[in-house]
Amino acid sequence: MKLWDKGTKMNQNVENFTVGKDRELDLQLAPFDVLGSLAHCKMLASIGLLESEELALVEKELQKIFTGIEKGDFEIEEGIEDVHSQVEYLLTQTLGDVGKKIHSGRSRNDQVLLDLKLFTRHQIEQVVNEAKALFDLLIENSEKYKGALIPGYTHLQVAMPSSFGLWFGAYAEALADDLSLLQAAFKMVDQNPLGSGAGYGSSFPLNRQMTTDLLGFENLNYNVVYAQMGRGKMEFAVVSALSNIAYTIGKLAMDACLYNSQNFGFISFADEFTTGSSIMPHKKNPDVFELVRARANSLQVLPTQIQSVSSNLPSGYHRDYQLIKEFFMPAFDQLISCLEMTKTMLSNVKLNESLLDDERYQYLFTVEMVNELVLKGVPFRDAYKEVGALVESGKFKFEGDLKHQHEGSIGNLCNAQIKSKLEKTLEAFNFEKIDQAYQNLLGRS
Amino acid sequence: MKLWDKGTKMNQNVENFTVGKDRELDLQLAPFDVLGSLAHCKMLASIGLLESEELALVEKELQKIFTGIEKGDFEIEEGIEDVHSQVEYLLTQTLGDVGKKIHSGRSRNDQVLLDLKLFTRHQIEQVVNEAKALFDLLIENSEKYKGALIPGYTHLQVAMPSSFGLWFGAYAEALADDLSLLQAAFKMVDQNPLGSGAGYGSSFPLNRQMTTDLLGFENLNYNVVYAQMGRGKMEFAVVSALSNIAYTIGKLAMDACLYNSQNFGFISFADEFTTGSSIMPHKKNPDVFELVRARANSLQVLPTQIQSVSSNLPSGYHRDYQLIKEFFMPAFDQLISCLEMTKTMLSNVKLNESLLDDERYQYLFTVEMVNELVLKGVPFRDAYKEVGALVESGKFKFEGDLKHQHEGSIGNLCNAQIKSKLEKTLEAFNFEKIDQAYQNLLGRS
Amino acid sequence: MKLWDKGTKMNQNVENFTVGKDRELDLQLAPFDVLGSLAHCKMLASIGLLESEELALVEKELQKIFTGIEKGDFEIEEGIEDVHSQVEYLLTQTLGDVGKKIHSGRSRNDQVLLDLKLFTRHQIEQVVNEAKALFDLLIENSEKYKGALIPGYTHLQVAMPSSFGLWFGAYAEALADDLSLLQAAFKMVDQNPLGSGAGYGSSFPLNRQMTTDLLGFENLNYNVVYAQMGRGKMEFAVVSALSNIAYTIGKLAMDACLYNSQNFGFISFADEFTTGSSIMPHKKNPDVFELVRARANSLQVLPTQIQSVSSNLPSGYHRDYQLIKEFFMPAFDQLISCLEMTKTMLSNVKLNESLLDDERYQYLFTVEMVNELVLKGVPFRDAYKEVGALVESGKFKFEGDLKHQHEGSIGNLCNAQIKSKLEKTLEAFNFEKIDQAYQNLLGRS
Amino acid sequence: MKLWDKGTKMNQNVENFTVGKDRELDLQLAPFDVLGSLAHCKMLASIGLLESEELALVEKELQKIFTGIEKGDFEIEEGIEDVHSQVEYLLTQTLGDVGKKIHSGRSRNDQVLLDLKLFTRHQIEQVVNEAKALFDLLIENSEKYKGALIPGYTHLQVAMPSSFGLWFGAYAEALADDLSLLQAAFKMVDQNPLGSGAGYGSSFPLNRQMTTDLLGFENLNYNVVYAQMGRGKMEFAVVSALSNIAYTIGKLAMDACLYNSQNFGFISFADEFTTGSSIMPHKKNPDVFELVRARANSLQVLPTQIQSVSSNLPSGYHRDYQLIKEFFMPAFDQLISCLEMTKTMLSNVKLNESLLDDERYQYLFTVEMVNELVLKGVPFRDAYKEVGALVESGKFKFEGDLKHQHEGSIGNLCNAQIKSKLEKTLEAFNFEKIDQAYQNLLGRS
Repeated sequence: MKLWDKGTKMNQNVENFTVGKDRELDLQLAPFDVLGSLAHCKMLASIGLLESEELALVEKELQKIFTGIEKGDFEIEEGIEDVHSQVEYLLTQTLGDVGKKIHSGRSRNDQVLLDLKLFTRHQIEQVVNEAKALFDLLIENSEKYKGALIPGYTHLQVAMPSSFGLWFGAYAEALADDLSLLQAAFKMVDQNPLGSGAGYGSSFPLNRQMTTDLLGFENLNYNVVYAQMGRGKMEFAVVSALSNIAYTIGKLAMDACLYNSQNFGFISFADEFTTGSSIMPHKKNPDVFELVRARANSLQVLPTQIQSVSSNLPSGYHRDYQLIKEFFMPAFDQLISCLEMTKTMLSNVKLNESLLDDERYQYLFTVEMVNELVLKGVPFRDAYKEVGALVESGKFKFEGDLKHQHEGSIGNLCNAQIKSKLEKTLEAFNFEKIDQAYQNLLGRS
Repeated sequence: MKLWDKGTKMNQNVENFTVGKDRELDLQLAPFDVLGSLAHCKMLASIGLLESEELALVEKELQKIFTGIEKGDFEIEEGIEDVHSQVEYLLTQTLGDVGKKIHSGRSRNDQVLLDLKLFTRHQIEQVVNEAKALFDLLIENSEKYKGALIPGYTHLQVAMPSSFGLWFGAYAEALADDLSLLQAAFKMVDQNPLGSGAGYGSSFPLNRQMTTDLLGFENLNYNVVYAQMGRGKMEFAVVSALSNIAYTIGKLAMDACLYNSQNFGFISFADEFTTGSSIMPHKKNPDVFELVRARANSLQVLPTQIQSVSSNLPSGYHRDYQLIKEFFMPAFDQLISCLEMTKTMLSNVKLNESLLDDERYQYLFTVEMVNELVLKGVPFRDAYKEVGALVESGKFKFEGDLKHQHEGSIGNLCNAQIKSKLEKTLEAFNFEKIDQAYQNLLGRS
Repeated sequence: MKLWDKGTKMNQNVENFTVGKDRELDLQLAPFDVLGSLAHCKMLASIGLLESEELALVEKELQKIFTGIEKGDFEIEEGIEDVHSQVEYLLTQTLGDVGKKIHSGRSRNDQVLLDLKLFTRHQIEQVVNEAKALFDLLIENSEKYKGALIPGYTHLQVAMPSSFGLWFGAYAEALADDLSLLQAAFKMVDQNPLGSGAGYGSSFPLNRQMTTDLLGFENLNYNVVYAQMGRGKMEFAVVSALSNIAYTIGKLAMDACLYNSQNFGFISFADEFTTGSSIMPHKKNPDVFELVRARANSLQVLPTQIQSVSSNLPSGYHRDYQLIKEFFMPAFDQLISCLEMTKTMLSNVKLNESLLDDERYQYLFTVEMVNELVLKGVPFRDAYKEVGALVESGKFKFEGDLKHQHEGSIGNLCNAQIKSKLEKTLEAFNFEKIDQAYQNLLGRS
Repeated sequence: MKLWDKGTKMNQNVENFTVGKDRELDLQLAPFDVLGSLAHCKMLASIGLLESEELALVEKELQKIFTGIEKGDFEIEEGIEDVHSQVEYLLTQTLGDVGKKIHSGRSRNDQVLLDLKLFTRHQIEQVVNEAKALFDLLIENSEKYKGALIPGYTHLQVAMPSSFGLWFGAYAEALADDLSLLQAAFKMVDQNPLGSGAGYGSSFPLNRQMTTDLLGFENLNYNVVYAQMGRGKMEFAVVSALSNIAYTIGKLAMDACLYNSQNFGFISFADEFTTGSSIMPHKKNPDVFELVRARANSLQVLPTQIQSVSSNLPSGYHRDYQLIKEFFMPAFDQLISCLEMTKTMLSNVKLNESLLDDERYQYLFTVEMVNELVLKGVPFRDAYKEVGALVESGKFKFEGDLKHQHEGSIGNLCNAQIKSKLEKTLEAFNFEKIDQAYQNLLGRS
C-alpha cells in the first residue's frame, strides 16, 4: 500500500530499489508518527475538518497503536511502503473513511520531517544523558587521581609534568563545550515543520501554532519552503554537533590506546576488558578503545556524507533525502555506545601512579627550573639558555616541588567551575516540557 | 630569529618547510598578538613579575606597534620565524631586557591559541554583519515580491504554487537558524586559553581570571590540557558552524543558476552581472552564482579537512595543527565574499512576474482542487483519486483563487516572526563588550 | 569460541561491542575463507607441517563446507566470534586435532586480509560485468538516437546543438575510462598477503609463492609489514577506483532528473518506473534516478570515510580496521544496484525527438553562423561580434545544416573506437585464471 | 581583455570575484597554453583555416613567447583576464588579424582542458621522479639495516620481532603499488580533449588525430561531451591516485614521530633537523614529520573536496570547475615537498640498533616458542595455551635464534622483486615520447 497509489502496478525492481531500507528504519519513527498524528487530528478538529466524535475515535485508535508500539507489537506489513502508510492502514481497517481523513492538510513530506524531528529530539536526549554520565565519571576520576603525576607531551616528546587529574578533567571540560554546541543544534531541531505540506503549504486554514504547542515545540519553522529545506539541513546541523562529541571521544580513545602500550604503560585493564591474539599468547589488546576511536572518527565524516548527497540540489524535496536516513538514524546509537563503552572502560582502568620515577622523564622539569630562575630575577630568555646548556651537557637535575597553582593547573583543577559550565547547558534543554506534551497527547497526564 | 633558538644552525630546507605559509598568515594575527601581550603584561605586573615602570614602557611600545599595524607598517622581517618572534624582537630592539621578560608565564602554544581565538572572534563578527545585511535584503525582497507567484517543485517536477515571497523568505529564515548555530560556536571560542602554556600550565602564580576580563572573554578554558586541546577542536567547531551558512548560500546559488536558465526563465541579470562565451555570442552566464555555489560547497568540506589532520593525534600539541591555519584562516573571507556577492546579485535581480501564464504550470493547482473537494466533505483519499482521473484524461482545469493563509504560507509569510528569531540571536553576541576591552588595553577609552 | 581464547571470561558488553557486525558481514567472506584454507593446507603439507593423509581429510572436509556455503547452509553459530573460528570449529568437530593444525603458519590477520582480497576480486568482477552491460546499452542507444538533436548547455544556459547520440556515448566513454582505473586497483588487490602472519611473518618455512599460484594471484605482497599495511590501504584504493564509476553514474542521474523535469521535457518514463505524491495527483517522479544519484554521491565519500579511520594510525594492525568492513563490503552491491537500475531505466526511456522546434533553442546555432562567416574568410573575433550584434537586436536566425564531422562530434560519434578502449581494459582483467585456480582447489576441475 | 568581450562594461566586484585566483594560477599553465596553440595552428593550417605563411608567423611568435616563459619574462598583464587572453593579446599585438585567427575551431573550454592536461602530465612526471628517489633510498636503507631488529606492534602492543629492514622495505613496496595506481590515472589524463570546443564540437573540419599526435598524446577523448565532462572528473581521478601516495607518506611520518618519542627511542635526528620549544630547553621536536603527516592527511581529502564542487552538476561546463584549480594545482608541489622532506630526513636518520636488549620486549618471542613446539609436533592450539600459561606465570623466556626465511620476512626481504615491481610500472609511463613531441612543436629537435 502506498499513500499515493494511482492504480498502476509498479515495476518490481523499481519498487524494491526505491523502498530501500525504509521499512526497517521507519520502525524507529513509528511512535513519533503516531504522536504527530495525534496533534494533527486535534488541530483538524479545531478548524472543522474533523467532527469531535471522529476525533475521539481517531485519538483512541492512535493511542492504542502507540501502546502496541511500546509493547513491540507494531510492524510494517509486507506490501506496505512505510510507517505512514502502515499507521493510516491500521486506522482505516478499524475506522473506515474516518481514518482516511487524517491526511487532510498534511503531505508525506511534512509528516516525515516531523517524525524525523521528534525522533531527533528524543535521540539527542539519550546522547545528553550518556554524555552526562561519562562527564560525571571523568570529574570523579579527575578528583580521585589529582595527585598522580604523568608526563605531559608535546610533539610526542616528553615535555612538562601533567597529572591524571588534568587528563580526566580535560575531557570533562571538552564534553561540556560539546554539549553546548549540541544544545544549539537541538534548538534548531525544536521547531515545528508540520503544516508545510510538500514545501508549499496548504489552502486549508491550518493552525500551525496549535500543533507547535501540542507537540512541545519551542518554535515554528515558519516559512514553508524553509521548513521543507530543513530536510537534509537539519541532519547536517545535528551531525555537525555530534561530530564535536565524537572528536572528543576519539582523542580520548587514542590517548588510551597509546597509554596502554608497553612503551607508555600509564594505564592497563583486566583481561575481561581486553582481547587476545590468535598466534601471540601474551597479547592483551585494547580493542574497545580502538573501536571507539574508529567509530568516533567515522562519525566525524557524517556531515560530509550528508553534504555529498544534498550538495547542489535546488530547493524543494528530492528523493535523495531519503538516503540520508541510512547514515543519520544509526549515528545516535553508534555515538551512545561509544560513550557507554568509554565509561565502562574508565570505570575499570588501572593507573600506574609512580610513573615519574622513570629516569627518562627527568626533563619534564626543565621549565620548573627556568621559572625558578626567573622568579629570582633572571630574564626569561637567559634562564632558558642556562637550563638548555645544562641539558646539553647532561647535568640537568631538578629536585624542587611542583608549584602549579593557577586556575586549571595541576594543583587547582577548577572541576567545580567545569561542572557549572555543564549544568548551565543542561538547563537549556527542556526535555520535561516535551515529555509533558506527549503525556497530554496520549491522554496519560 | 626563533623564540626557541638553541644556537644550532637549522637545515635550510627544514627551516623553509616548517615555516611554510606562517609568515604570510601571521600578518593577520598581528593586532591580536599585541592585544594579548598587553593583557599578559598587565597580569605579569599584578603578580610582581614585571615592575610597574617596566609595564609602562612595555605598554607604550606595544600600543605603538599596534598603531603601526593599523597603518599597515608592520611586517615580519626576513629571518624572523613568526609574528610572536617579530613582536618580541621589536620590543627588545627598543627596550632591551625588559622586552624579553614578557615571555614569562607564557608559551608560544598558548600565545598562538589566544591569537587565533581573538582573530576568530573578530572574523565571526564580520560574518555576522554580512549575513545580517543579506538577511535584511532577503526579507525586503520577500515582502516586495510576495504577490509574484512561481511554480513550486518537488523532485524537479512541477508541484504546487509558490511565490518569490516564499523563496526569498525561506533563505532569510535559514540564515537566522545558521547564525544561531554560529552563536554557539562563538561562545566556545569566547573562552580564554592564556595561561595554559604548552598545555600543562605554569609554576608562576598566574592570574588567568584577570586576563580573561582584560580581553573581554566571557569565560575561561579552565583545564590547561583542555585549553591546548582547543587547537584543532576550536577550528573544527567554528568551520562546522560556518558550514551551515555555506549550505544555505550554496542552495540559493543553485536555485539562482537554475532559475536563470532559459528552461526556467524565472530570473535574469543585466549584462554587467554576467559573463560571455569565447565562441557563443549569445551567452549571458551566471558565473557569480556558479562560483558562490562552488565556494559554498567547498567550504562545507572544511570540517573534514581539519579532522583529517587532527584525527588520531593524541592529546598534547603537534605541529600538524599549524597546517590547519592554511584552511581555517581564509575561510572567513571566502564566506564573506559569497555573502556579499549574493547580496549584490539579489539587489540587481530581475524577476519574471507572469510565470504562471505558461500552460505547463497548470498542474500546480491539482492540490487546490483536491482541497476544495475535501472542504465540501469528500474524504481526502477519494478527492485525490477524482482529481488524479481528471489529470490522466487531460481534463484538469482549475480557476479558483489561492487561499494559502496559515502561518508561513504564500498569503502569510510571517517575516516579522522570522526577523524576531534573528534579533534574539544577534543579541547573544556581545561584540561591544569585546571592543570596549580592547579600547581599554590600548589606552584609548 | 575465539581463536585466541585464554580461558578468561570476557565482559559481556565488551564482547558485544567488539564483535560488532562481524558475524553478519563475515558470512560473505565464508567461501573465500574456505578457499584460502584449502591453499594454506596444501602448502603446509608441502613443507611437512601436515601429513598427506591429514591433508586429504582436511581438504575433503573443507570442500564439504564450501558446498554447504553454496547451498546456503552455512551459518556462524551463537557464541562463535567470526567466520574463521566457525570454519575451524567445524573442522575440529569432525577431525579433532587435525583440524587445529591448519592455523599453523597463519594468523587471523593474514587470514582476514586474504579473505578480503578474494572477496574484493570477486566483487570487482561483478562490478565490471554490470558496468559492461550498461556500457553496451549506452552505445546501443547512442547509435540508435544519433540523429536526435538536443540542446547542449554550458552554465545551464542554452549553448550549442548536441544530440542524444552524443549524450549516451559520453557516458559510455566515461565508463571505459572508469574501468581502466578499476583495473589498476584490481591489480593492487591481486597480490597474495598470505604468510605475512600478524604483519611480521613467521619462523615456519612457508612457501608463499605456492599459495600465490594456488589462489590464482598475479603476484605477492612481498614485504610482510607492507602486506599487513594493505589492510585499510587496499580498501582505500579500491573505493577510490569505484568512486570514479559513481561519479559517472551520479552525473548521468542528475542529467536524467533534469531532463525529465517539465521545464526540459527531454525524456520521460512510463508510470511503472515513476512514483506519485500523497497529495498531488498529477506527479510522476523520477525517484529511481534520485536514489541512484544520492547513492552515487554517497559512495564518493567512502575514501574519506576510510581515511578518517586509518589516518594517523602507525604501521601494524589496529582493530580500527575492522570497522572499515562496514562501509567497504556493502559498497559493491550498492554500486551494482545503481548500475542495474540505470540500465533498467535507460532501457525504458522515452525520448522527445523534436526538441529543437522550440523557439527558445534558436540561439543554439549562433556558433554555426560564426563558423560559416569564418570559412568565408572573416577573422573569428569579427565574426563573433557580428553575430553578437544580431542576437542583441533580436534579428538572429540560422537556417543552414549542421556540419559536425570531426572525431567525436554529432556526425561522427566514434563509438567503435570507444568500444575498443573498453575491450582493451577488459582483457587485462584475468578472471578466468582465478576461476580455474578455485576449481582446482575445490577438486572440481 | 576578455576573449568574450561584448562591449558592455562589467561590474567591478563581479569582475574581481569571477577572476579569483586565475591570473596567479594561470602562470603555471602558460607554457602548456603555448604548446597547445602550436599544435592547434599546425592543424588549422592542414585544413586550410590558416595560410602556410600565416602559420610560419604564428609559430615563430609562439615559440618566442615560450622562450620568454622559460626565462621568467611572461606575465598576465593588468586588465587581462587569463593566460589564454594574454597569449592571444601578445599575438595580435605583433601579428594583428592573423593572431585573432587561431581561436577558430577552439573554445576557451577545450583550451583550458588541454592546458590542464598538459600541466598534469608534467606534474605527474615530477611526482614519479620524486617518489622514485624516495623509493631508492628506502630500499637502500632496508638493505643496510636488515640486521637491525625492532619490536613489531599490533594494537600498539609489543607483538613480534620486526626489523628496520622490514620497516623501510614496507614503504618502498607501498610506493611501488601507489605509482601503479598513478600510472592508470596518467593514462586517463593522456588523452586529447582538443577539438571538443565548448563540449559540443565544431562545424569546422578539425583533424583531432593530428593534434593528438603533435602533442604526444596516447589517445583521444573521442566523444566531445565526454571530453568536456573530463573537467572535474580528471582532477578527481588524479587526486584519488595521489591520495594513495599521501596515504603511504602519512603513515611513514606517523611511525617516525612515534619512533622518535622518548617512549620508543627507535630513531633520532641531529639538532639541525628538529625544532625547539619557546619554554622547554630540552625539546627536539620532529616538526618535519609532523608537517609531512598533516599535509599527507589533508591531501587525502582532495577527492572529496573536488566532489563537493562537482557533485550534482549536470553535464556541460559550469564555472564551478574553475575553483577546482585552486585545490588541484598546488597539490602536486605539496606532495612533492613531502616526498623530498621525507627523503631528506631518512637520509639523516640515526637508528637505535640495540633496541631488543630492553626487558620490555621479551614477549616479542612468544610466537617463536609456540612455533618451535609446533615443529616438534604439538598441535598449534595446544602450544599456544602452553606458552600463554608461561606468560601468565611470569616464567616466559626465549633464547633461540630467529628463523624467518620465507618470502618477504626478516631474513628474506625480497627487495629485488619489489624493485622489479616498480620498474615495470615506470616503463609504462612514456615521458620521453611527450618530450620529443614538444621539442618538435618548438622547432628544437
